[in-house]
Amino acid sequence: MSRYWSDIVSKLRPYVAGEQPRIPGLVKLNTNENPYGPSPAALEAIGQAADDRLRLYPDPAATELRETIAARHGLTADEVFVGNGSDEVLAHAFQALLRHELPLLYPDISYSFYPTYSLLYDIEAIEAPVDDTFQIRLADYDRPCGAIIIPNPNAPTGIGLPLADIEALVATHPDAVVVIDEAYVDFGGDSAIPLISKYPNLLVVQTLSKSRSFAGLRVGFALGQRELIEALVRVKDSFNSYPLDRLAQVAATAAIKDEAWFEACRTKLIASRDGLVRDLEALEFEVLPSQANFVFARHESRSGAALQAALRERGVLVRHFAKPRISDFLRISIGTNEECARLVSALKEILAA
Amino acid sequence: MSRYWSDIVSKLRPYVAGEQPRIPGLVKLNTNENPYGPSPAALEAIGQAADDRLRLYPDPAATELRETIAARHGLTADEVFVGNGSDEVLAHAFQALLRHELPLLYPDISYSFYPTYSLLYDIEAIEAPVDDTFQIRLADYDRPCGAIIIPNPNAPTGIGLPLADIEALVATHPDAVVVIDEAYVDFGGDSAIPLISKYPNLLVVQTLSKSRSFAGLRVGFALGQRELIEALVRVKDSFNSYPLDRLAQVAATAAIKDEAWFEACRTKLIASRDGLVRDLEALEFEVLPSQANFVFARHESRSGAALQAALRERGVLVRHFAKPRISDFLRISIGTNEECARLVSALKEILAA
Repeated sequence: MSRYWSDIVSKLRPYVAGEQPRIPGLVKLNTNENPYGPSPAALEAIGQAADDRLRLYPDPAATELRETIAARHGLTADEVFVGNGSDEVLAHAFQALLRHELPLLYPDISYSFYPTYSLLYDIEAIEAPVDDTFQIRLADYDRPCGAIIIPNPNAPTGIGLPLADIEALVATHPDAVVVIDEAYVDFGGDSAIPLISKYPNLLVVQTLSKSRSFAGLRVGFALGQRELIEALVRVKDSFNSYPLDRLAQVAATAAIKDEAWFEACRTKLIASRDGLVRDLEALEFEVLPSQANFVFARHESRSGAALQAALRERGVLVRHFAKPRISDFLRISIGTNEECARLVSALKEILAA
Repeated sequence: MSRYWSDIVSKLRPYVAGEQPRIPGLVKLNTNENPYGPSPAALEAIGQAADDRLRLYPDPAATELRETIAARHGLTADEVFVGNGSDEVLAHAFQALLRHELPLLYPDISYSFYPTYSLLYDIEAIEAPVDDTFQIRLADYDRPCGAIIIPNPNAPTGIGLPLADIEALVATHPDAVVVIDEAYVDFGGDSAIPLISKYPNLLVVQTLSKSRSFAGLRVGFALGQRELIEALVRVKDSFNSYPLDRLAQVAATAAIKDEAWFEACRTKLIASRDGLVRDLEALEFEVLPSQANFVFARHESRSGAALQAALRERGVLVRHFAKPRISDFLRISIGTNEECARLVSALKEILAA
């Protein structure tokens, strides 16, 4: 605490991201990165843009990127908002669309940045508990609220909601903004994008960090009807005119256009996930049903913290959350088949000890 | 206005950036970009980083970049904060350090993003008028205040304050955070960085967009004692863990290290500015004394709006602000000698008509 700080600063609980160690040879399954690299066409686009034109400001509206995203999803560019990673997009959404007199609702087991944003923007939030099988229960959202945000699939559980449930949630809350955070949807979930034309209160957020293998590039986007997008643009233009640099704009545009690469990578990843689930179950792990690029698993013989530490000693990083209800679980990102095999072999060794 | 918007959204007055047209052949002197490209070593660094590693998140703390900036200025890395352009750094500073019970002070003629940030974060701000020669008068800041922000050199006037005046301002307001926004300082101003060790209430903000020719890359930074930097980090980590992508981090690091390129470009630019001032004065423009990479000038025979429009017809873009006190002025970015010559020749034609 300092007399120079604005009041809000000491009230914050900053988000703690998974560690990004620079130790060679680690099997890094802790931050849900894609084990396969980004589209070669997108890397090529970066090379072609890395020249003297970087002296010039980027397009503040990222027009070409927004048009490309819009075209892929059958929308218009003014139904697309882009930002510096979906975290920035979510931050703007919290400030622009999720702060109302009635509280914001989200699941208690969910993306741990949501409570952080709520504090940053002084939003009253109520956590709706997931059930004992970690499923989101729609009935828990049948209460007065100003807005709702739900990841689909949920994180860190990986459990998805069927599109019919999402539609029911949006349709039964016509006065509340409902944000569906689809960071992981491309690995097996059902996107709510087809509902946008029908519901003015629906905002869908996606990222290029996961299924497009561009965590290092920082590009995310939101889709919704113009009224919602306009609110985001107004906040963005009151915060930073140029959140996406020239390289990120061209690379993201090329990545979105490269459907073949996208399909090949996610198909490989889903196959690896299916294999890993079988291997973990063979070791008597309980694995929640995942539609994401990670699995959430626990073993009755060991605590989550102990397993994480033992894996780390063997050069394998996974994520553990020291939080009520989920402290026995590990969140394991899906790696290549080789990385998954190294994880499984380390677990065998640990469980045999 | 929409029932889905948070209250703040309809109160905002979003900043309007200078236009970024995509018309070939324009002489673009409207957004204070550097006419010379960025360091070739920095472009090389981008090429070397544009590979499969982009699937991985960047270092959330941008450690190497912060260490490089710190080393250049004789500080430690925990006295350096980096962000996605100095606009993001300023936004975080407004939220973390400039909101207090007493009002924030800044000059009435100044960076027009300051009132925008003040609305975004609900900060009571008082504009202290510059005098009739557009100079900042220290006496106007001798009043109860929670914080002060001043660009040095000021924008859009280009007029600099001597370091002794900056020190007097910081020293006489020990209870208020004083932010010196040095976006343009490398073109002839005196940086307040040497004062940081002495004053815990001083924050200095700089950018790579101008003197490092990297407007297209989006990197800015703040320097100050640890207590101030910690407030910025807490807000940043409540907003977006990874504001700087991998390419921006390596390119900015290389650019900061390339002192020779930096010196050569700014020397050429200052020489072009001196020449342009002489040419404008020969055309009977009044040109304010500039320490920046732009000049602020007016002509008694024409309005600023008329001159801007006539220049645009001739393929030359300059910036005009339709604001009280400065609506007769043009803000002209310093281009290459050839670009300055095209501007002067267009002005001759316009004034002869």
